[in-house]
Amino acid sequence: MIEIVGLDADDTLWHNEPLFTSRREQFCALLTRYEPQGVAEHQLYEVEMRNLRHFGYGVKGFVLSMIETAIEITGGRLENQDVRQIIEWGRDMLAGPIRLLDGVGEALEALAQEYSIVLVTKGDLLDQETKLARSGLGGLFKGIEIVSDKNAQVYRRVMSRYGVAPERFVMVGNSLRSDILPVVEAGGHAVYVPYEMCWIHERVPDEALAGATFHEIAHIRELPPLLKQIVAPGAEGPPSAQ
Amino acid sequence: MIEIVGLDADDTLWHNEPLFTSRREQFCALLTRYEPQGVAEHQLYEVEMRNLRHFGYGVKGFVLSMIETAIEITGGRLENQDVRQIIEWGRDMLAGPIRLLDGVGEALEALAQEYSIVLVTKGDLLDQETKLARSGLGGLFKGIEIVSDKNAQVYRRVMSRYGVAPERFVMVGNSLRSDILPVVEAGGHAVYVPYEMCWIHERVPDEALAGATFHEIAHIRELPPLLKQIVAPGAEGPPSAQ
Repeated sequence: MIEIVGLDADDTLWHNEPLFTSRREQFCALLTRYEPQGVAEHQLYEVEMRNLRHFGYGVKGFVLSMIETAIEITGGRLENQDVRQIIEWGRDMLAGPIRLLDGVGEALEALAQEYSIVLVTKGDLLDQETKLARSGLGGLFKGIEIVSDKNAQVYRRVMSRYGVAPERFVMVGNSLRSDILPVVEAGGHAVYVPYEMCWIHERVPDEALAGATFHEIAHIRELPPLLKQIVAPGAEGPPSAQ
Repeated sequence: MIEIVGLDADDTLWHNEPLFTSRREQFCALLTRYEPQGVAEHQLYEVEMRNLRHFGYGVKGFVLSMIETAIEITGGRLENQDVRQIIEWGRDMLAGPIRLLDGVGEALEALAQEYSIVLVTKGDLLDQETKLARSGLGGLFKGIEIVSDKNAQVYRRVMSRYGVAPERFVMVGNSLRSDILPVVEAGGHAVYVPYEMCWIHERVPDEALAGATFHEIAHIRELPPLLKQIVAPGAEGPPSAQ
């Protein structure tokens, strides 16, 4: 029944959030030279959220937000060497090795034999393209959709682009906010594969999940057998979450 | 004969390069406080080119390159207020009004009645999407292709995505390097509409044009009548450049 499998990239296929988390920790550590009593990470998060509508998701906006936050926190005493350091972190994040999650290669090869698989990810365009290239997985995908945000309208556009009905589309990812809820809203299937950590921006309150029907698996290797069970609306087995 | 018309965005539909040019001038002016004898603009260009493979095209990479250049030129004496100013320029560029080129609205409305029109542009994903939204032209396009670079392979992928043969695809834009030569290489038609200024990176040496057949018009209002003349390979009138 399923024709197209949409796959999120960051923290679904390869490790990503740990890169940001460790940079946030380094950022706070760097600022203790100016503010020995320590810096609250939420200040960076607030600047990131303020900048999101201008800079969008991705490393470049993260770097600009770190620089702005550091200038605010230090009251304009941030040294040039630390501005350089922050930009250098960004370049490292954009060029670093890709660490696939365990079992991803085998799962995707199995999926690609049965379905058309499409990458659906947000972030900086060039960054996501080069990550896919470095991952070695590029050849398995029928299409790459790098989008500025993931909402129901965007998923409807993706389905329409591939000429697939919602009941024959499934999205797989680690973010309830971005990969699961908007797909369910658009009438598609969704499989939630939690990652070990989740950026606060991607979290959703429990109430937001009320009434949403989707599947949950602990490991991507459970995906190929699960998809065979998704046969038709109403004919599915009991969903693992609602 | 033509089915799909690809249109570049920056400096083809709306003014863009003047925004960058005036920021480059302001950037040099800002640095005269540190280097009174003046700063050569080519230093910024060199940093931009060095960063291109990491940051890609667009405003965010431009801002990061300006900050890095300023730190290099001032020998680490760049004041925090000037870092903030540079970031603020970037935010202004991302949020400023869209100034359509003369005649664009009428030309696109005429084209959209005869052909499917597709936007093909490079730059930051969110930035290009919001520019299109602010332009008021979004509803005329069948598709939006925001790409990290424009080469023959990318154009082949775009043609394949819309299921169009190269001889039924025409690309229209102001950059010989990005909008014309790679499309001709991919077997498509191309219409060059020069803009009043051209970023040095988009310029090509005359030799690169040898043997390339494409059309040239002075104004986008000449586009609808020109496209009616493009009938079939070999059956065209004499191209205006070769």
